[in-house]
Amino acid sequence: MKRRQFLGRLGSGAVVAGAGLAAACKPQAPAPQAAPAAAGRSTKPVKWKMVTTWPKNFPGLGTGANYFAELITQLSGGRIEVKVYGAKELVPAFEVFDAVSRGTAQLGHGAAYYWKGKSQAAQFFAAVPFGLTADEMNAWLYHGGGMQLWQETYAPFGLVPLACGNTGVQMAGWFNREINTLDDLKGLKMRIPGLGGEVLARAGGVPVSLPGGELFTSLQSGAIDATEWVGPYNDLAFGLYKAAKYYYYPGWHEPGTTLECMVNKQAFEALSAELQAIVRGAARIANQDMLAEYNARNNQALKTLVDEHQVELRALPDEVLRRLKTLSDEVVAEVADKDAQSRRVYTAFRDFREQVTAWSNVSERAYLDARAGVRL
Amino acid sequence: MKRRQFLGRLGSGAVVAGAGLAAACKPQAPAPQAAPAAAGRSTKPVKWKMVTTWPKNFPGLGTGANYFAELITQLSGGRIEVKVYGAKELVPAFEVFDAVSRGTAQLGHGAAYYWKGKSQAAQFFAAVPFGLTADEMNAWLYHGGGMQLWQETYAPFGLVPLACGNTGVQMAGWFNREINTLDDLKGLKMRIPGLGGEVLARAGGVPVSLPGGELFTSLQSGAIDATEWVGPYNDLAFGLYKAAKYYYYPGWHEPGTTLECMVNKQAFEALSAELQAIVRGAARIANQDMLAEYNARNNQALKTLVDEHQVELRALPDEVLRRLKTLSDEVVAEVADKDAQSRRVYTAFRDFREQVTAWSNVSERAYLDARAGVRL
Repeated sequence: MKRRQFLGRLGSGAVVAGAGLAAACKPQAPAPQAAPAAAGRSTKPVKWKMVTTWPKNFPGLGTGANYFAELITQLSGGRIEVKVYGAKELVPAFEVFDAVSRGTAQLGHGAAYYWKGKSQAAQFFAAVPFGLTADEMNAWLYHGGGMQLWQETYAPFGLVPLACGNTGVQMAGWFNREINTLDDLKGLKMRIPGLGGEVLARAGGVPVSLPGGELFTSLQSGAIDATEWVGPYNDLAFGLYKAAKYYYYPGWHEPGTTLECMVNKQAFEALSAELQAIVRGAARIANQDMLAEYNARNNQALKTLVDEHQVELRALPDEVLRRLKTLSDEVVAEVADKDAQSRRVYTAFRDFREQVTAWSNVSERAYLDARAGVRL
Repeated sequence: MKRRQFLGRLGSGAVVAGAGLAAACKPQAPAPQAAPAAAGRSTKPVKWKMVTTWPKNFPGLGTGANYFAELITQLSGGRIEVKVYGAKELVPAFEVFDAVSRGTAQLGHGAAYYWKGKSQAAQFFAAVPFGLTADEMNAWLYHGGGMQLWQETYAPFGLVPLACGNTGVQMAGWFNREINTLDDLKGLKMRIPGLGGEVLARAGGVPVSLPGGELFTSLQSGAIDATEWVGPYNDLAFGLYKAAKYYYYPGWHEPGTTLECMVNKQAFEALSAELQAIVRGAARIANQDMLAEYNARNNQALKTLVDEHQVELRALPDEVLRRLKTLSDEVVAEVADKDAQSRRVYTAFRDFREQVTAWSNVSERAYLDARAGVRL
């Protein structure tokens, strides 16, 4: 897919404004093509629509949604057919939640932090600054009680959530200003949405909200000093290296972003147990596959960026990361004050993070440090 | 499951002796209960046997095999039924490969490094010292060409391999001798099988081969100075903390061990495309789920070991890890000299590791270091 296409198609932005979301939260009857309870063995296929928050076929995210749809059809031997819609094809990106809640579509593919206007607690099921890595998220969701909390959070909207992809650790972003000390964050105009943006603001920076389609020119013109996006695979395709000097790591604000599939609850419950298992199973496979794809493609793209485009890779200084972590913990803790469900999810998330960090420090981190040959 | 049961059931050991394997490598006709080509829609279920290298229900590994079997049945709506056999119930642990190759069973669950007596190249598809983490293995297998190489490696035996679980980073092991310098490895009697053992020998240690059932008493009596096993979850259940003073990390010798399912090729090809997709899909789900389970349970078990049993956690010194890495790279490279397929797999593995390490250093490692608050 060509860069020009991305730019054109990304006009609807990548993070929800919250206010633009319709308030109709009660689920309505599933769309007429949803199957009756005994449809598992029917010869007539169940026809489902999947609306997504991504431009159609957007690499990694949009193609991950396509793969999930194909898996459902393949594993069900054609008993469920899924038609995938890119953002704006059926509904705008940030109306996906409501569209699936209403039953306009049976499936939606996006990221839970887009729906903080519906529920602040939703943010914990995508990514939070200095939160969980991809593997830690999966451990929390599948074997640490996280999935039940997510189901509770979406239940009032008539939605069944499923983890359906992961980008892995993202990059801190593209900068035209060197970050050597905390002072360099002061006045830094950076496109960084959500909780990460709030953290930057508390560090003295100026978070800017911009749709994806405006990143390149804003960076090039100097309207912004920096922008985060995803990681080498998506960033290379986007051409951001042509508009910025430094590529900073690590992505402290999105350390393992989980993508989601939401299913209209009534449509889901109308399926046979076998087809329900297939939809759940397809999400599990898509969840793992996206991470594997990002890891494989990011490493190729990083090599291209550094070797062919002479991108200057830089680590954020320790002093800066420590300050951002302190501020992140404050900002994330404040989400718990919003409502009872947010407090419940925050408490579970915080406890799991504390315990899994102790384990990751002696396993994944200690091993990666040892392989790199530096002190533990 | 009680420790006494483990100890009794682990008598057959955990690493293949190679010489004990029968030489019959040609696939024969699938067992009579294997389905004909059109069985996908038949009302009579396909009945498959799965032989495993684990004691029945062994936590994590054996239960992972059970979960895989249940998934196949669930996703196929009962069209495939799988009966799981623990080691020695149908065939001994190290005859699993031959049993599935012959068609005595249609499925086998184990780890590819057990079959180095069949093919040296197989070791790369389980774990090698200073090799890939779980996420990196999945990136290599699913999006880096690794799966094709694995299929080639098993094809001569009439087997289709599938990645079917991962333990994540293991621990370096339980020690009754402090490891402060390279000299402390000299004469160290340690139970550590396979390539890791060869590395220890080159560092001046004495690798010992012992079945799982003898670890505890050998450590307690002083017959060995140290042993590796898996990680906190399995090690706690095994009671090893009662027989050793120090628990060292990280597991340089097994940084993300992939478990496998092997399928008898003729039995697999007799399935409909839909049921083939279900068997492949079930393996993907089981692969991800085992890692999530280990990560969730290891962190709880680590806390119990440290808080309740006052286990002394120690990092292997940098000097020691650097030496072990140098020796590991030598030992692993020598596998490439065994035969043409081993060279082919080694070369691909080495290239992928080099590239993915560069990416992991700026993503997973840099992030985990930043979250821990130490220098990058």
